[in-house]
Amino acid sequence: MRKVLNKGFVKLVDKMGDDSSIVQAARVSYSKGTKTKREDDKLIHYLLKNHHWTPFEMVVFKFHVKLPIFIARQWMRHRAGTFNEISARYSEMEECFYIPELERIQSQSITNKQGSDGELELSKRKVAYCSFIEVSEFAFKEYQKLLDLGVSRELSRMSLPVNIFTEFYWKVDLRNLFNFLTLRNDSHAQFEIREYSKAILDIISEIVPVAYEAYNKNK
Amino acid sequence: MRKVLNKGFVKLVDKMGDDSSIVQAARVSYSKGTKTKREDDKLIHYLLKNHHWTPFEMVVFKFHVKLPIFIARQWMRHRAGTFNEISARYSEMEECFYIPELERIQSQSITNKQGSDGELELSKRKVAYCSFIEVSEFAFKEYQKLLDLGVSRELSRMSLPVNIFTEFYWKVDLRNLFNFLTLRNDSHAQFEIREYSKAILDIISEIVPVAYEAYNKNK
Amino acid sequence: MRKVLNKGFVKLVDKMGDDSSIVQAARVSYSKGTKTKREDDKLIHYLLKNHHWTPFEMVVFKFHVKLPIFIARQWMRHRAGTFNEISARYSEMEECFYIPELERIQSQSITNKQGSDGELELSKRKVAYCSFIEVSEFAFKEYQKLLDLGVSRELSRMSLPVNIFTEFYWKVDLRNLFNFLTLRNDSHAQFEIREYSKAILDIISEIVPVAYEAYNKNK
Amino acid sequence: MRKVLNKGFVKLVDKMGDDSSIVQAARVSYSKGTKTKREDDKLIHYLLKNHHWTPFEMVVFKFHVKLPIFIARQWMRHRAGTFNEISARYSEMEECFYIPELERIQSQSITNKQGSDGELELSKRKVAYCSFIEVSEFAFKEYQKLLDLGVSRELSRMSLPVNIFTEFYWKVDLRNLFNFLTLRNDSHAQFEIREYSKAILDIISEIVPVAYEAYNKNK
Repeated sequence: MRKVLNKGFVKLVDKMGDDSSIVQAARVSYSKGTKTKREDDKLIHYLLKNHHWTPFEMVVFKFHVKLPIFIARQWMRHRAGTFNEISARYSEMEECFYIPELERIQSQSITNKQGSDGELELSKRKVAYCSFIEVSEFAFKEYQKLLDLGVSRELSRMSLPVNIFTEFYWKVDLRNLFNFLTLRNDSHAQFEIREYSKAILDIISEIVPVAYEAYNKNK
Repeated sequence: MRKVLNKGFVKLVDKMGDDSSIVQAARVSYSKGTKTKREDDKLIHYLLKNHHWTPFEMVVFKFHVKLPIFIARQWMRHRAGTFNEISARYSEMEECFYIPELERIQSQSITNKQGSDGELELSKRKVAYCSFIEVSEFAFKEYQKLLDLGVSRELSRMSLPVNIFTEFYWKVDLRNLFNFLTLRNDSHAQFEIREYSKAILDIISEIVPVAYEAYNKNK
Repeated sequence: MRKVLNKGFVKLVDKMGDDSSIVQAARVSYSKGTKTKREDDKLIHYLLKNHHWTPFEMVVFKFHVKLPIFIARQWMRHRAGTFNEISARYSEMEECFYIPELERIQSQSITNKQGSDGELELSKRKVAYCSFIEVSEFAFKEYQKLLDLGVSRELSRMSLPVNIFTEFYWKVDLRNLFNFLTLRNDSHAQFEIREYSKAILDIISEIVPVAYEAYNKNK
Repeated sequence: MRKVLNKGFVKLVDKMGDDSSIVQAARVSYSKGTKTKREDDKLIHYLLKNHHWTPFEMVVFKFHVKLPIFIARQWMRHRAGTFNEISARYSEMEECFYIPELERIQSQSITNKQGSDGELELSKRKVAYCSFIEVSEFAFKEYQKLLDLGVSRELSRMSLPVNIFTEFYWKVDLRNLFNFLTLRNDSHAQFEIREYSKAILDIISEIVPVAYEAYNKNK
């Protein structure tokens, strides 16, 4: 399990296949049997470089992820996978919010219209830090007040801010995971999702070392 | 444009095909030409009843939807379509929140673990109503305070609650739209998404009247 | 490995998950831990009966299949999976054809416009049987003649009939496999693909016995 | 309608959207209205260059295609679209085969393991040409013989070679069409499918001229 952000994590729960599954699937096209390790590695590099993606779909991962809702929203734009998420209609949410560290609190980027990278005075960062905590605490207090009044969960949760943590299981194949990582470990992606991407890269580097190397070389 | 909830809407922006496109696609399987209107209608009913879904994929809709984030989150679990949504990293969010009407504020359902349908005293409903407004206003005030301090948009928006309105364009074909409607216009779905589903049903009933009739008969 | 038809087979090569993975994925929605075996089984039946399909996507299979091209064509209409197939552009095809057994050679069905179920005199069935063999042998002889002349593989194979065997790896999750089986183990499906469907049902009944039972009960 | 190969064609039957739909979908992310034509064109180039693909999914095409089965098999490996194809279980197939022109009959490529590009003596090409015709005619004669005997269509068609023509309707969005064209109009793709790709490029260049230009610049 890799810890991410103040209270999140990524955990590999299950997987199917490894580098050899990519080779096996590709070789059926040529109806040829196994070869040397060196030839297999070369084949994986060749496939990735030439965008022969289907053999990479033969490797499948299942992750358990805990992350703030605003990151889950970016994550779920990736449609080629399966999600099962905690439902705030079924269950009460825990008081567990993402509060960025002081040094992460940055100003609007000038070059990147969607990013943040500018400097910000310490005093302002402290104000922002306290504001995040204050809104989270107030919203959660009101959430509980409504639950205590008997208001249904699906209604009470409407006041919870998007920095509250949620959890899901995510099944995805290696082809689509590489696509996710290319977009989400990019400098244009938000810092918080890049942190998750790095944790995932770290995890898969041990399971598909050759594909991982080929990916890094070609991205 | 159909108004939905206090400040949302569904609007059909573009479409491809109608009942005749379903017939045309199905008839290619039999390599037969056009027939009478009555036979065409019968064919659509037959296809839908027997789960021959691909011809229904030949009809495509594009909607513009304004809706609260917690409903957008349910909506986007449907992966077989295309979404383009306002980005709170690029743009400042408007002060526009979903506040349920007093009579919608209900207690937790006893029979339906994820729903709300019980009665609730008026005084309690009023407390909840005010709480929704109060959290929305406070969170938005803090959001603007952070923006004014120079904190980046992607960070400032973290305190916004899930009842804030967002907007997206949604492209979906009729097969997947029927699937969406079956799940989201169901009594187990949350009231708010059922309101959107009804608006959509209303819109498409005029464009694919025969398929709409067949759908209602078989669902 | 299950033998299917005169020279085909289905073989499970790899898999991820079992009944417990379905339960695990579903339980995250309620953020509840493990329960008794009996409650787990009940949950799987409940999910399947109520079309809560995503937890079934958490179980993944990889099959190796050898089958005639005309069946592969029906199979590949199922888009939610991954195929890696032998390429007749890369490799020479083996002389390996599907020749139906005498009792399978039937006349056009009268009730089912796409099927065959009528009786046919033995003498006619024998003529058909010989015809299949004759065309297969002639086409393959010409195929080899062209290869021997130096004509490229991608051109030479154009004369091969659709009863020649091909092979592929197929990765598919349990949700989409159930959908495949519902359509392809149906009385309206062609006999030959039903034979493959039965072999697959047989294989998965041992891996996901509870889901298999629930599927049979609800289909 | 564009004629392709000796007896095939590609025909645009319906479409939704054009260049302006791409712009409209992209602009919602920034919640900004219309701009000048020049800025719109620049935006399309920017989106394509930076792999922001979803706005291109907002443009949808429906084609009617007549093509040999071995090309249909390559085509249908593209899963992100909808196909409705003539069924040889429902309908009798026409006697309509792809016979390559003499100059197309080439030897196996030495550099490209899956291609053909070498020279071949005229006499050999003539032998191959006659062989294609002979097998097609023989197989079709046997097909009709079986139908005349009363053998079901789904069985009789098993002897038909993969150069027989089939037809389908194909619905696909612009994003996935570009992906198709990148793979199928490539020098590694088979000559015959490249011919179809060129016809499609020709058709869409008139409907989405700016996206077409951006695609050509960046592929």
